[in-house]
Amino acid sequence: MFALKKTIYFTGFMASGKSRIGRSIAERLHATFIDTDALIVERQGKSISEIFEEQGEAAFRKMELETIQEIAADSSPKVVALGGGTLTQAAVVSLIRKTGIIVRLWASPEVLSERIGRKDTRPLMSGLSPEERLEKVKTMLAEREERYALADFSVESTNDSEDIVISAVLRGLKFWDSRAVYVEPSGGSHYPIFIGHKLIPQISSMLAGLRLAPKDSFLVCTDTTIAKAQSRNLGMLRHEAGNCPAFKFRAGEIYKNLSSLNQLYTFMLRRRYSRKSCLLQLSGGVVGDMAGFAAATYQRGIDFVQIPTTLLSMVDSSVGGKVAVNHSEGKNMIGAFYQPKAVVCDLDVLATLPDSEYLAGLAEVVKYGVIYDEKFFAFLEQNVQKILARDSEALAHIIRRSCEIKAEVVGIDEKEQGLRAILNYGHTFGHAIENLHHYEFSHGIGVSLGMRVAARLARNLGMISPEIENRQTALLDAYGFPKTVDGVQPDAAWDAMGVDKKVEKNKRVYILPTKIGEVKKVANVEESLVKEAWKAVLPEVTA
Amino acid sequence: MFALKKTIYFTGFMASGKSRIGRSIAERLHATFIDTDALIVERQGKSISEIFEEQGEAAFRKMELETIQEIAADSSPKVVALGGGTLTQAAVVSLIRKTGIIVRLWASPEVLSERIGRKDTRPLMSGLSPEERLEKVKTMLAEREERYALADFSVESTNDSEDIVISAVLRGLKFWDSRAVYVEPSGGSHYPIFIGHKLIPQISSMLAGLRLAPKDSFLVCTDTTIAKAQSRNLGMLRHEAGNCPAFKFRAGEIYKNLSSLNQLYTFMLRRRYSRKSCLLQLSGGVVGDMAGFAAATYQRGIDFVQIPTTLLSMVDSSVGGKVAVNHSEGKNMIGAFYQPKAVVCDLDVLATLPDSEYLAGLAEVVKYGVIYDEKFFAFLEQNVQKILARDSEALAHIIRRSCEIKAEVVGIDEKEQGLRAILNYGHTFGHAIENLHHYEFSHGIGVSLGMRVAARLARNLGMISPEIENRQTALLDAYGFPKTVDGVQPDAAWDAMGVDKKVEKNKRVYILPTKIGEVKKVANVEESLVKEAWKAVLPEVTA
Repeated sequence: MFALKKTIYFTGFMASGKSRIGRSIAERLHATFIDTDALIVERQGKSISEIFEEQGEAAFRKMELETIQEIAADSSPKVVALGGGTLTQAAVVSLIRKTGIIVRLWASPEVLSERIGRKDTRPLMSGLSPEERLEKVKTMLAEREERYALADFSVESTNDSEDIVISAVLRGLKFWDSRAVYVEPSGGSHYPIFIGHKLIPQISSMLAGLRLAPKDSFLVCTDTTIAKAQSRNLGMLRHEAGNCPAFKFRAGEIYKNLSSLNQLYTFMLRRRYSRKSCLLQLSGGVVGDMAGFAAATYQRGIDFVQIPTTLLSMVDSSVGGKVAVNHSEGKNMIGAFYQPKAVVCDLDVLATLPDSEYLAGLAEVVKYGVIYDEKFFAFLEQNVQKILARDSEALAHIIRRSCEIKAEVVGIDEKEQGLRAILNYGHTFGHAIENLHHYEFSHGIGVSLGMRVAARLARNLGMISPEIENRQTALLDAYGFPKTVDGVQPDAAWDAMGVDKKVEKNKRVYILPTKIGEVKKVANVEESLVKEAWKAVLPEVTA
Repeated sequence: MFALKKTIYFTGFMASGKSRIGRSIAERLHATFIDTDALIVERQGKSISEIFEEQGEAAFRKMELETIQEIAADSSPKVVALGGGTLTQAAVVSLIRKTGIIVRLWASPEVLSERIGRKDTRPLMSGLSPEERLEKVKTMLAEREERYALADFSVESTNDSEDIVISAVLRGLKFWDSRAVYVEPSGGSHYPIFIGHKLIPQISSMLAGLRLAPKDSFLVCTDTTIAKAQSRNLGMLRHEAGNCPAFKFRAGEIYKNLSSLNQLYTFMLRRRYSRKSCLLQLSGGVVGDMAGFAAATYQRGIDFVQIPTTLLSMVDSSVGGKVAVNHSEGKNMIGAFYQPKAVVCDLDVLATLPDSEYLAGLAEVVKYGVIYDEKFFAFLEQNVQKILARDSEALAHIIRRSCEIKAEVVGIDEKEQGLRAILNYGHTFGHAIENLHHYEFSHGIGVSLGMRVAARLARNLGMISPEIENRQTALLDAYGFPKTVDGVQPDAAWDAMGVDKKVEKNKRVYILPTKIGEVKKVANVEESLVKEAWKAVLPEVTA
């Protein structure tokens, strides 16, 4: 049986079933049911129309806010039916989001109008002919759509069988229970990241809850390697998405280009995918970037959902909206900023991830600790064995906290002008290593080595004490990250660091730690000091 | 000599020269100069700090607003220096935008800090060391950037020679005098459309005014045909943009594809164009769509400016942000919504436009009258000869009004869910004609024929009187649009109308007039009625 952890708030148009379904859900879950409108009427001893007339709308909204505050302050979860206009108040929305889950019930205008007509008790609708009523319902729905869209998820209540509606609500609640964080890129949109076990086998409730696309308009995108390694999950995913087709890119970074993208476009156009379609990406970062760019550009943009298959893509590319393909002249040179509608981190997909790839993801996790959160860094120090053993709880925590940190940083600065640069900690040096190894080198391992160089540079510049560098070194060693790298000489590395960007060498900017949990940008660093710092990862240190 | 038509408001950081430059500009233009801070101080008999302390910030902001209201109400243009925080008030910004031009003066933090240090009279900055002062200037500038970005254009006042700054301001004012409309897509950004003569030869003042890119980071994009036809303008444009390179697509719709796009990417990457570059598109709709998509995707998005070379692209694709390339499976299937930073309609480029292309543009102009503005339709009726003769004033008016209408429609509905569909008036039928002619048919002429069919259908449905249809017919005839089209049969046309989209035939939606100046969406139209309406443009009418 599903146990209620948070208060559930029902929203929706009149006659969508908020009270009826809400009351039934409350009974099933043995929770208290509250209808905020009814509660206000009871307490005031007046009808809502009377309150509006005598005290004005502002007074009523204040009563609503106070009622919600009261409900939110009580720690036992409840089931609540909201009034039609409650979500117009920003303060209410933010409070409900923090303490509960908002479920929208919806039905077609025709169904709603017919239901309203059955009992003529709604003052706004009385005395109208069926045609007039339907027109009025359509107009009011259009006006309120933005408000209802604030719901966490939606359930169709068209079907008059209450059991079907109730079980859809319960399935949705179960899925939303795994919600870790909302990412809010600039521009007002936001999307959820779900983290938990057995999410793919329940994903249809999420797809329906977010009303992403009609049943026959999904496409799964993956690559040939993942299709084999994740064949069971792939099968379940396709099944959950209405037995949809799957498109497989050829596996490998060398195929992350416009030509592969064009194959996907052709595949979709021949199957007549419209602009209301939805791409489900079962993939690591490479396919994720490419399929995300396809979603951004297919018929000027369609919805997409990321279902990352590696730890790295869960903690890194699932947040931030950077999508791209490579060009023969440079990596990720063709792309866009485009946000998914949801990210689903199903921990079960990590079961078969090779240790080396798991480690590559951990490098980014360590990075978040160093740049932003000493407490999280301490958690990583204290839970080395659990994390290496992929302990379920520890894993969920590190993914959740990593996504939260990235979402915070990116939310402040979506388009990489300022703060977002701190996410590049370790990357400037790491990229040089990847470059010198002709990109046949794990990005994550490159970052781990880059962090070692960055910390050494910070120490040599007097920005941190040797103890701080040693603390990072000890953590990286404990997780088994390589201590040195072959085939890199400081002079060559210095040159390689300038390859990607049109920056003059003396204007290079470095992200360097000032303590565990904080980094800052540093410019104008002497070439000799940078070369000296590389010794932190060279096999034969002569100094 | 430049004549002041609107009040100029100077904004900028302290010591950026608002009062000094403002006063000099006022002298040159024989206008009154007002420093709003000084005026408030004089009237209140108190310093600004005293007002803040005794009456609070809100009271001061109210005084500011009232001062601006007073200035705006007076019809004679003035030169005004604004206070540092004036633009924080939304009411002030909207009032100033309606009645004047906002010019920002800017200089590097180093220059500002040095100037401030020269005379220690700024209370916020007193007692600081030069390093502390520079840090404080940087911090405050970053905080205020968003506010300063509300300016219409910016002028660098780093150069201490007042004459250079003043002439840059005057050049900017001259350019901004041609500003027709601001397009405000959702998401808070907005961009100006300039309409006038000799704009390309002055475009450097606009590029500098919008601070689009460093001098060496521009690229002009065009095609081989336009490069020949507009060789003088192309040369001037390149000169104005710092003698920048030009990239020429092969001319023709068949080259509007990913492969041509990739050639542009390669060209730019080899020349190391960074994400701070800016594309200037001297082009009609085809190249405009393609280069706009390149701008949307090159390094995840760079700035671009549209300089349309046809009437059609001035009144149609310059507003709305739709960019795309074709795919072998369909037109404009790969694309994005991406807004330019400015649109420059230099009427001089139309001098060499063939009559047939001019007419194609006029079809869209007539469309705006029918769907949105009877007064504009009447203007088109009354000015047939002037418009056909490309009279300067009439031309500027029809482009301006068309852009305004499209901006209004698109501003309400950027992503084509609802209202934007009215822009498709005549297009459903027009596309069918283009399709049956394998797209070797002018889009504009197709639209003109499509409007005839749509009006006939509306008449047959009893939505408009025969007089309304006749009024549209008469106008189209007056401009010399073809009355009939060969090679189209109602049955084939009916089938061709369903080709592009995955819509069931009985769910087709038509945009039909209800009068001149208004259209609405109509669904569920009988097949026989649609076929009947096609007779409006068939050579042999048997009815």
